[in-house]
Amino acid sequence: MSDWTSYLNARDDDAVRELQELLRIPSVSALPEHADDVRAAGQWVLRRMQQAGIEHVEMMETGGHPVVYGDWLHAPGKPTVMIYGHFDVQPVDPVNLWVTPPFDPAIRDGRIYARGANDDKGNMLPPIQAVEALLATEGALPINVKFFFEGQEEIGSPTLPTFISDNRTKFACDMVISSDGGQWSETEPALLIGLRGLCAVQIDVTGPSHDLHSGGAGGSIQNPIHALVALLNTLHAPDGTILVEGFLDSVRPLSEQDRAYLAEIPYDEEAYKQRLGVSEVFGEPGFSSYERITARPTIELNGIWGGFSGAGTKTVIPSTAHAKITCRLVADQDPNAMLELLQAHIEKHTPPGVSIHLDLSESSAQPYLMPADHPGNDAARDVLRELYGREPYYARSGGSIPVCTLFKNSLDVYTVNFAFALNDELQHSPNEFFRLENFHRGRHAYVKFLKRLAQI
Amino acid sequence: MSDWTSYLNARDDDAVRELQELLRIPSVSALPEHADDVRAAGQWVLRRMQQAGIEHVEMMETGGHPVVYGDWLHAPGKPTVMIYGHFDVQPVDPVNLWVTPPFDPAIRDGRIYARGANDDKGNMLPPIQAVEALLATEGALPINVKFFFEGQEEIGSPTLPTFISDNRTKFACDMVISSDGGQWSETEPALLIGLRGLCAVQIDVTGPSHDLHSGGAGGSIQNPIHALVALLNTLHAPDGTILVEGFLDSVRPLSEQDRAYLAEIPYDEEAYKQRLGVSEVFGEPGFSSYERITARPTIELNGIWGGFSGAGTKTVIPSTAHAKITCRLVADQDPNAMLELLQAHIEKHTPPGVSIHLDLSESSAQPYLMPADHPGNDAARDVLRELYGREPYYARSGGSIPVCTLFKNSLDVYTVNFAFALNDELQHSPNEFFRLENFHRGRHAYVKFLKRLAQI
Repeated sequence: MSDWTSYLNARDDDAVRELQELLRIPSVSALPEHADDVRAAGQWVLRRMQQAGIEHVEMMETGGHPVVYGDWLHAPGKPTVMIYGHFDVQPVDPVNLWVTPPFDPAIRDGRIYARGANDDKGNMLPPIQAVEALLATEGALPINVKFFFEGQEEIGSPTLPTFISDNRTKFACDMVISSDGGQWSETEPALLIGLRGLCAVQIDVTGPSHDLHSGGAGGSIQNPIHALVALLNTLHAPDGTILVEGFLDSVRPLSEQDRAYLAEIPYDEEAYKQRLGVSEVFGEPGFSSYERITARPTIELNGIWGGFSGAGTKTVIPSTAHAKITCRLVADQDPNAMLELLQAHIEKHTPPGVSIHLDLSESSAQPYLMPADHPGNDAARDVLRELYGREPYYARSGGSIPVCTLFKNSLDVYTVNFAFALNDELQHSPNEFFRLENFHRGRHAYVKFLKRLAQI
Repeated sequence: MSDWTSYLNARDDDAVRELQELLRIPSVSALPEHADDVRAAGQWVLRRMQQAGIEHVEMMETGGHPVVYGDWLHAPGKPTVMIYGHFDVQPVDPVNLWVTPPFDPAIRDGRIYARGANDDKGNMLPPIQAVEALLATEGALPINVKFFFEGQEEIGSPTLPTFISDNRTKFACDMVISSDGGQWSETEPALLIGLRGLCAVQIDVTGPSHDLHSGGAGGSIQNPIHALVALLNTLHAPDGTILVEGFLDSVRPLSEQDRAYLAEIPYDEEAYKQRLGVSEVFGEPGFSSYERITARPTIELNGIWGGFSGAGTKTVIPSTAHAKITCRLVADQDPNAMLELLQAHIEKHTPPGVSIHLDLSESSAQPYLMPADHPGNDAARDVLRELYGREPYYARSGGSIPVCTLFKNSLDVYTVNFAFALNDELQHSPNEFFRLENFHRGRHAYVKFLKRLAQI
C-alpha cells in the first residue's frame, strides 16, 4: 500500500467532517441575501487549500461572487492542468419537502444529504484532499496544478468571461479538469464530451395599473395572466417542438457517428421514467429521449406566477403576471442570438391590452463539444478503467457548465470531466445527496489521475 | 330639524370612530388563520346592535363563519324587511402596495382607507346607526326590521344555503335590503337589478414526482407549467370569446329593453380605462364594454403559480403547477352546471405526460335578475331622488352577491340594493377606501328609507 493511500485512508472520517463543514454554509448564489454566505464558502475553501500545502492561495474579486485561486508549479517540463469546481449552490425551495434541513448535512445509509452535496461541494473537495496527500507523503506533485474554484456557477457565471479574459496569463494551462460532473452509474464510468448551453429571460406582463375586482372588470379588459398564457403557448407546438422562428436553424445536425456514440449508452427509458416519477416521456418527434436531453435544445418554463395563490378564492384580476424561462442550447447555437430570436418572437406574439417587459439574463453559457480522443480524456479513461474495470462511455450532458466554453474561448483549452456525481442524486431538488463511497473514490482517483497525466 | 336628524348629526364623530374600530379587525374570510378575526368582527357587530336597541341579537352558527342576527318586530300590519350586510373582507395582498396598513384605518381628504372600508363594513354599519337614532328619538321603528350580517360573503357564502333553508321561518320577510352595493357616482344614484353569479375551480397539474434539473430532463418530459399553459389557453379564443363547449348555451339573450336600460347608463369608456389603468378595453366581440362587464359571463384566471419565482434563475422543471379560476355567470347559467362543463373541457384538453386534479370550490353564486318595478325599488327610488335630486339608473353589477339568489330561492323574496359605495373605491385592491360623505349619507338615508317603506 502506497503512502498516499495510507494517508487518505487514515483520514476518511476527517474528510467527511470537512465536507459537512462546507455543506453547512448556505452559499446560494441566486439569492442576494446569501451573497455573504457564498463568500464565506470561498473563505472556507481558501483556508482548506492553504492547509493542503497549495501555494499562492488567494480570493480574487470578479465583480460578482469571488473566485478562489491557488497553484503548485514545481514540475518543470510536465503538463500544467487547472482544476475547476464551484462552491455556490442552488436555492433550496420548496424547503418543506426536505427530510432534513438543506444546510444541516445528514448521513443516512452511506449517503450525505444536503444542498450542494452532489453539486458541487462533494466533488470539488476531493482534488484538494488528494493534492494534500501527495504533498504530505511525496513532497511534490507529478505535474503542475492550478486551482480555480468559483461562486457563481449556479447563476451562469455572469462576471467570469471578463474576469478570465483579464487574467489569461495567470490561468494559462494545458487543460482544465472539471470536478463538476459525474459518472454514468455506480459501476459504469463515462467521459463527458458535450454540454448544453444556456440562456435565460424573465417575462413581465403588465395590464391594469393595479389589481382589480373581477366583478367590476372581468370580461372588459385583457387579464395579464390570460395574455401570459396565450404568449407562452406560442413557444411550442403541442408535440413539444420549438416554434420560435429561426431557433432551430443553427443547430448542428447529429452525424451518424454522434448518434452511434449516444446509442452505445445504456439509457434505460423505464428506469428513467421511474426515477423522474413520470408516466411517459414526452418531447420533440424524430429524436430518442436521450438525444432530446443531450443533443437538442429546449425552451423551458422554470417558473410562473401572478395573482392570488392562497387558500380559497380571490376574485382578482392581477395587475401583473410573470414567467421565468431558460433555454438549453446545443452546438452551434449562440446564447445571445437565441435571446434575440426569443425577444422578436415574444414581441410579435404579445396579445393586445397588455405591455411586456423582458429581463434578458446575463446568465448564459455557450454549448460545448470536445474531441473524444483528447489526451486528457485518454488519461481519464485509463484511470476510470482501472477503478471500474471497464471502458467509459463517451457521453453528453443535458446540463450546462458555462466555464467549459469560457475556458475554451479565453484560454484555448478543453475541459476534461473528472468527477463522481450520479444522475439520481437529486441535484437542484429537495433531498440532494452524494454517495460517500464516490466521495472517497474521488479522493483516490484524483491522485491516480494526476500521476497518469504526468505521462502525456 | 327632526329629532333623529339631530341625533345622527350629534354623533358624526362617534360614527366614524365606530367604523374605525370595526375596520381594525382583520376579518379575512378566505384565510383559515383569520377565522377567529372573522368571529371577532361578528362579536363587535353583535354588541353594536345590542347597544342600538335591536332585540333578540345573537350569533348563529352556520358550520362556517357565523351569522349575526337581530330584529325589532313591533310594527303590526307593516312590512317586514331584513337588512343584509357582511363583516368579512378580502385578503390584502399585495400588502406592500398599501400606502397605510390595511387594518389601520387612516382618514385622508375625507376618505377612510382600510380593507373593508367600502366592502362592506362602511356600508353595513349605517343601518344599525339609523335604527338606533329612530329608537332613541321616536321609541319605535316605522316597519318591522330583521338584521342578517354574515362573515363569508367574500368566499361565496358556502354554508349559507343550508343555514338559511334551515331557518326559513326566522328569516321570513317581505324583502331583503342589501347594504352590500352602491350608487353610480357622487351625484348619480342607481338601483341594482342584476348581479353576476360565480363559480370557482383550482387546477393542480402534476408532472414528475419531484422538482427536476432542467439540464437532466429538459426536452424529454412534459413540463407541468407548459401543460398548464397549453390547457389554460384552450379556455378562450384570442379575441376573448369563451371556448368551453356549451358554456354560453344557457345565457339568456339580452332583450331590446335590457340593452336600452344598459345604454341609458352614462358609461364613460375613457374614464373607465383611466381608472383601471389600461390602454384599451378588450373582450368578447358583439357586445359593448359595459355589457361585457354586467351581462356576459367570464372565465377569469385569478392566480397562477409553479416553479421558481425568486431573483435570478433556477434551472428547474417543477413537479407541479397551479391556477385559480373564477367564472362570472349571468342569467340563466347554473354554477354547478358550468363547473361540470369546465371539468369536461379540462379533462378533454389535458396535455399528455401530466395528471390533473380539479378542486371544485363550494363557493358559488347563482346569477340574479329582479323586476325593475319591485315595490322596494320604488321606495328606494323615491329616497334616492330626494337625496340626489334625480332619477336613479336601473343598473346591473358585474359582481356577485350570492345571498340575493339564496334569499330568492329559500325565502322567495327579492333583495333591494340600498348602499353607498362607489366603483372607484378600489374594493378588493390595495388602498381600498370609502368616502365619509357617503358613509354619513347612508346613516340618514336608511332612516328615510325605513319610513318610506312603511307606505308600501
